[in-house]
Amino acid sequence: MHNYSSTVSVAVAGASGYAGQELLRILARHPGTKLSAAMTSSPGSAARPLPRLARVFDGQLQPLDHDRLAEADAVFLAVPEAASASLVPELQARGVKRIFDLSGAFRLRDLALRKKWYPATTSEPEGLAYGLTELAKEEIAAASVVACPGCYPTAALLALRPLADAGLLNLSHGVVIDAKSGISGAGRTPSDRTHFSEVHGSVAAYGVFAHRHVAEIEQQLGSDVTFVPHLVPLDRGILETIYVRVRPEVTAFEIEAAFNAAYEHAPFVRLTGEALPEVKHVAYTNFCDIGWKFDAASHRLVLVSCIDNLIKGAAGQAVQNFNVAFGLDEREGLS
Amino acid sequence: MHNYSSTVSVAVAGASGYAGQELLRILARHPGTKLSAAMTSSPGSAARPLPRLARVFDGQLQPLDHDRLAEADAVFLAVPEAASASLVPELQARGVKRIFDLSGAFRLRDLALRKKWYPATTSEPEGLAYGLTELAKEEIAAASVVACPGCYPTAALLALRPLADAGLLNLSHGVVIDAKSGISGAGRTPSDRTHFSEVHGSVAAYGVFAHRHVAEIEQQLGSDVTFVPHLVPLDRGILETIYVRVRPEVTAFEIEAAFNAAYEHAPFVRLTGEALPEVKHVAYTNFCDIGWKFDAASHRLVLVSCIDNLIKGAAGQAVQNFNVAFGLDEREGLS
Amino acid sequence: MHNYSSTVSVAVAGASGYAGQELLRILARHPGTKLSAAMTSSPGSAARPLPRLARVFDGQLQPLDHDRLAEADAVFLAVPEAASASLVPELQARGVKRIFDLSGAFRLRDLALRKKWYPATTSEPEGLAYGLTELAKEEIAAASVVACPGCYPTAALLALRPLADAGLLNLSHGVVIDAKSGISGAGRTPSDRTHFSEVHGSVAAYGVFAHRHVAEIEQQLGSDVTFVPHLVPLDRGILETIYVRVRPEVTAFEIEAAFNAAYEHAPFVRLTGEALPEVKHVAYTNFCDIGWKFDAASHRLVLVSCIDNLIKGAAGQAVQNFNVAFGLDEREGLS
Amino acid sequence: MHNYSSTVSVAVAGASGYAGQELLRILARHPGTKLSAAMTSSPGSAARPLPRLARVFDGQLQPLDHDRLAEADAVFLAVPEAASASLVPELQARGVKRIFDLSGAFRLRDLALRKKWYPATTSEPEGLAYGLTELAKEEIAAASVVACPGCYPTAALLALRPLADAGLLNLSHGVVIDAKSGISGAGRTPSDRTHFSEVHGSVAAYGVFAHRHVAEIEQQLGSDVTFVPHLVPLDRGILETIYVRVRPEVTAFEIEAAFNAAYEHAPFVRLTGEALPEVKHVAYTNFCDIGWKFDAASHRLVLVSCIDNLIKGAAGQAVQNFNVAFGLDEREGLS
Repeated sequence: MHNYSSTVSVAVAGASGYAGQELLRILARHPGTKLSAAMTSSPGSAARPLPRLARVFDGQLQPLDHDRLAEADAVFLAVPEAASASLVPELQARGVKRIFDLSGAFRLRDLALRKKWYPATTSEPEGLAYGLTELAKEEIAAASVVACPGCYPTAALLALRPLADAGLLNLSHGVVIDAKSGISGAGRTPSDRTHFSEVHGSVAAYGVFAHRHVAEIEQQLGSDVTFVPHLVPLDRGILETIYVRVRPEVTAFEIEAAFNAAYEHAPFVRLTGEALPEVKHVAYTNFCDIGWKFDAASHRLVLVSCIDNLIKGAAGQAVQNFNVAFGLDEREGLS
Repeated sequence: MHNYSSTVSVAVAGASGYAGQELLRILARHPGTKLSAAMTSSPGSAARPLPRLARVFDGQLQPLDHDRLAEADAVFLAVPEAASASLVPELQARGVKRIFDLSGAFRLRDLALRKKWYPATTSEPEGLAYGLTELAKEEIAAASVVACPGCYPTAALLALRPLADAGLLNLSHGVVIDAKSGISGAGRTPSDRTHFSEVHGSVAAYGVFAHRHVAEIEQQLGSDVTFVPHLVPLDRGILETIYVRVRPEVTAFEIEAAFNAAYEHAPFVRLTGEALPEVKHVAYTNFCDIGWKFDAASHRLVLVSCIDNLIKGAAGQAVQNFNVAFGLDEREGLS
Repeated sequence: MHNYSSTVSVAVAGASGYAGQELLRILARHPGTKLSAAMTSSPGSAARPLPRLARVFDGQLQPLDHDRLAEADAVFLAVPEAASASLVPELQARGVKRIFDLSGAFRLRDLALRKKWYPATTSEPEGLAYGLTELAKEEIAAASVVACPGCYPTAALLALRPLADAGLLNLSHGVVIDAKSGISGAGRTPSDRTHFSEVHGSVAAYGVFAHRHVAEIEQQLGSDVTFVPHLVPLDRGILETIYVRVRPEVTAFEIEAAFNAAYEHAPFVRLTGEALPEVKHVAYTNFCDIGWKFDAASHRLVLVSCIDNLIKGAAGQAVQNFNVAFGLDEREGLS
Repeated sequence: MHNYSSTVSVAVAGASGYAGQELLRILARHPGTKLSAAMTSSPGSAARPLPRLARVFDGQLQPLDHDRLAEADAVFLAVPEAASASLVPELQARGVKRIFDLSGAFRLRDLALRKKWYPATTSEPEGLAYGLTELAKEEIAAASVVACPGCYPTAALLALRPLADAGLLNLSHGVVIDAKSGISGAGRTPSDRTHFSEVHGSVAAYGVFAHRHVAEIEQQLGSDVTFVPHLVPLDRGILETIYVRVRPEVTAFEIEAAFNAAYEHAPFVRLTGEALPEVKHVAYTNFCDIGWKFDAASHRLVLVSCIDNLIKGAAGQAVQNFNVAFGLDEREGLS
């Protein structure tokens, strides 16, 4: 346990959604932070208690208040992307030094793609980093604004990037990412899509050729992908099955070596090798579990990557980025 | 298979809800009916196909149309209770001879209770019967309007009534009915209450001392009950655990005999005795399974009663009542 | 409705498993059959009632009895593959004219593959057909032994075969089949793999590069595939997401036309087009729902195919084959 | 955060079951303990890693070893009751000062009941306490052996005892406890009862008039109860709905006051009042949430009590007892 001479004051906007609630749960027990404010996404909401978090976070959920946000050392934004698009530059202008944005507003660098998928985003913040923690620690440490990755890209990129970066993949053959997600990923607003009776006992694909996380994965991978997300009847977690080919001469040893090299010092990536990972073992944790099966004869590689969409895919990774930014142990508040 | 010299034209209003869809599914395959119209609950809705029912019912879902309803030999109403409250007298006045109302509008006879729980109901139809099929066949056969029982009362009354009618119960000690219901019972409208992520992995009680089905059960049982419904994470089905005391001298044999006498000729009640029933075995069927455990020393009797809330608790029982009313085999369309 | 001058006597072996129970459920209500015997997979089991099927099938579950099986006009085998491997030739030799085998024993034609995946199979029956109903009606009508397809191949082939047969696919690029299956597909025997607490809240891949259904799909498709099955937390149903490329000049119109031509007269295949199908809408039915999304620019086609693994993927398709074999309406007993 | 001058060495036997794994998960992160050994329940098992707990507990799961157990400052037993029955006296004899037994072996004081429900228990340890933490802190602090309560009694007694102790209840009228439990409560051994396909979509009662937790509840309450447990399709958690009558003159204020007095300083009991608790909000926590509805006119009181069966109902409460016994903050390792 660490001895903190001083703690960092943090504020959360958007604390009423599922990811926001996880942020509160984590930050309230984080030994290096003082949670100064928990706000909704709207200035017009009434203050209210959070009975579900009683004894964990006993404060009130406040209406959105830009002034109070601006007073914090670090701000976490779990608000809709259009709100982030305007809040981030405003908070920067008012002197907030560290902003962790969980929305997609600043994830895409290509302006055309940003305009297509996040039209409300009209500025480029100074000191922006894409916060896939394990693969961007230096950028995160130096950043003023961290665009925290989407849940699907997090699982996909942590599995693909070490192999792509090591030059092992034959990306020209195409990459297929078949994702299965729990329903909390669809957010807290009730809809036909999230009605229990529609989801229970069912599986459904959605967003084929039209999900904005495709652009994010392609940007970070430097290659086109075919990505199909599915809703499966569980609350928490994502499992992605990734179909790719390696270059002809690549061996099983090289694949394993590339993963080991990438994650040797990563406390939250667990390599399971041929024992493929399962959602259950990462749910309610900040782990990303990665396993794979390789058919050397055909150069086919099947990767399986699992995360908890609300933790490693949202709140947990944001706090992990916070820890990196403030020079703390990466695991603070997350184990 | 029967040879029907003539079929009955039936119309359904409220076919877009869960119970209404089950009605369509059953009636479309019912050998004795011609489904003349499937309507929503609203005159303003646009006609639309029902892709989920493709090849089962390929007609369009029409807006509510009183004229077309009035042309049918029999009308099934799966509309909100306030709509039933006005539609039933209107359709009767226009000459519809048989109306099967799945709402609660006409279930309560006591005017004060009716006013409290179903305030839109301001008239008393001629020829009204409470349609708990197994225990009211003669009334149903003679009725013009059948108020089909609520899902919770169906399961409770089929278990309690044979024993109460045989004078075996010590009702003065109190009756506790603890009900566990699947989420389809909460209807199709999305809400916090029916959001997958709120229901999955949870169990919750609701409506304690304040559920209108209490009045319905008490009316049909002639005694007060304590009734607590719970939402459990499944789609279809209700299991009720009923705690009651028998009169001091009552034997296990008398309990079994009372059930056997009541259901000797009931094709949809299955007595499981000490092998307690489970929701799974009645889901997607019109069965009510009833089992019990008796502690003779303490006179305590625990009854367990299971139904599919959308079939035996709604659409199936309504069609069973239709069969009784039109002199058909009770099982037509339901096995 | 048909007028049956005579009914066919049918016997079922292996009626205690999940697929076997569905067979009983279907055959007991089939207007064209007389269910002469329902047996387990073992001659040593004691006769016992089937309380779950009370009022649907009230007979006893008998021990396996070759003599009684041999007396039936048609035999359904839902026994383990090794049992089928010896029972099929024996029953043929004893004069049974129609055998519907739900096991994998006779699905593979290539002897090397058969030896690898189904080593107990050492003979080749006379008059053997692979019973993918919609695409093999003539062979089924003429066959003495129908090898009913596996659940995964059924969903995959009904989606892929019309396009492959029409020459629209660029199979050289590879086919990826990502399958999500309910747990009943894993059979009735309790195991770690099927323990509720291991499955609930989880998703897991299994059998990568090592599932025998691959050989079956490849045989019927005439091309290699990459197939990864997953267990998802539902009881009934399979959804397969299939990633394939079409030949460069192929249009959306041609894809749709190929499907329409193949299934114009198929009562159990529903083409949903761009409205992708979901497991829920085929569960407890014999339907196969097929939808697709096409990206003309990249020639990428994503197919989604859903079935109920125990019905269209097992018992239902077997009865559909029975109907075809006996010249009955394909839908008898199945709607 | 505390500054620990010294840590307590703890050993766990029975770490392969669900409760045992939770113990490891908690103890591995407990700042005041050093986990010296994690063992199975059997001396013959081979040592093996615990991949699910990688990065949380990276030690091996060892075969049961009495010598190593005897070296620890504190021993947690999550072994079958017969094993506890002999291990507890042996470890005491060998000088272990603090034993936390999660089995039922020593929960019952009445010798006849103990013989009936736990026949392997033939001795009475010195310094035995029944470890319902909130209501027995002094006994636990002084005890050598803590019999940790069963999951069902924990939820029931935390709700009933404050009212009974305050003399508010009319226990002569009877107490009905209707419990709904997740499947992890049935243990890790696969069985028909825990097969996913049998549990999913179902609810079932079991153990009516024959569950050994009845004796435990009755012992601690000093009154007879009617207790019916049910399996519901979720993994973690118990919700109990308790039907009881208060003495005629008792007011809502007195009920609330009794609860407040009992739990004023209890960090893990959350009183939700009329906002009834739900399983979801206690799952994966050590909280017990208690709410109630009171009908003053009829003196009927419905209590609802929720816990996570593996944490507050097993491993968490055991560690809470450990904290009390060693004078630590009750919350250590548990928030």
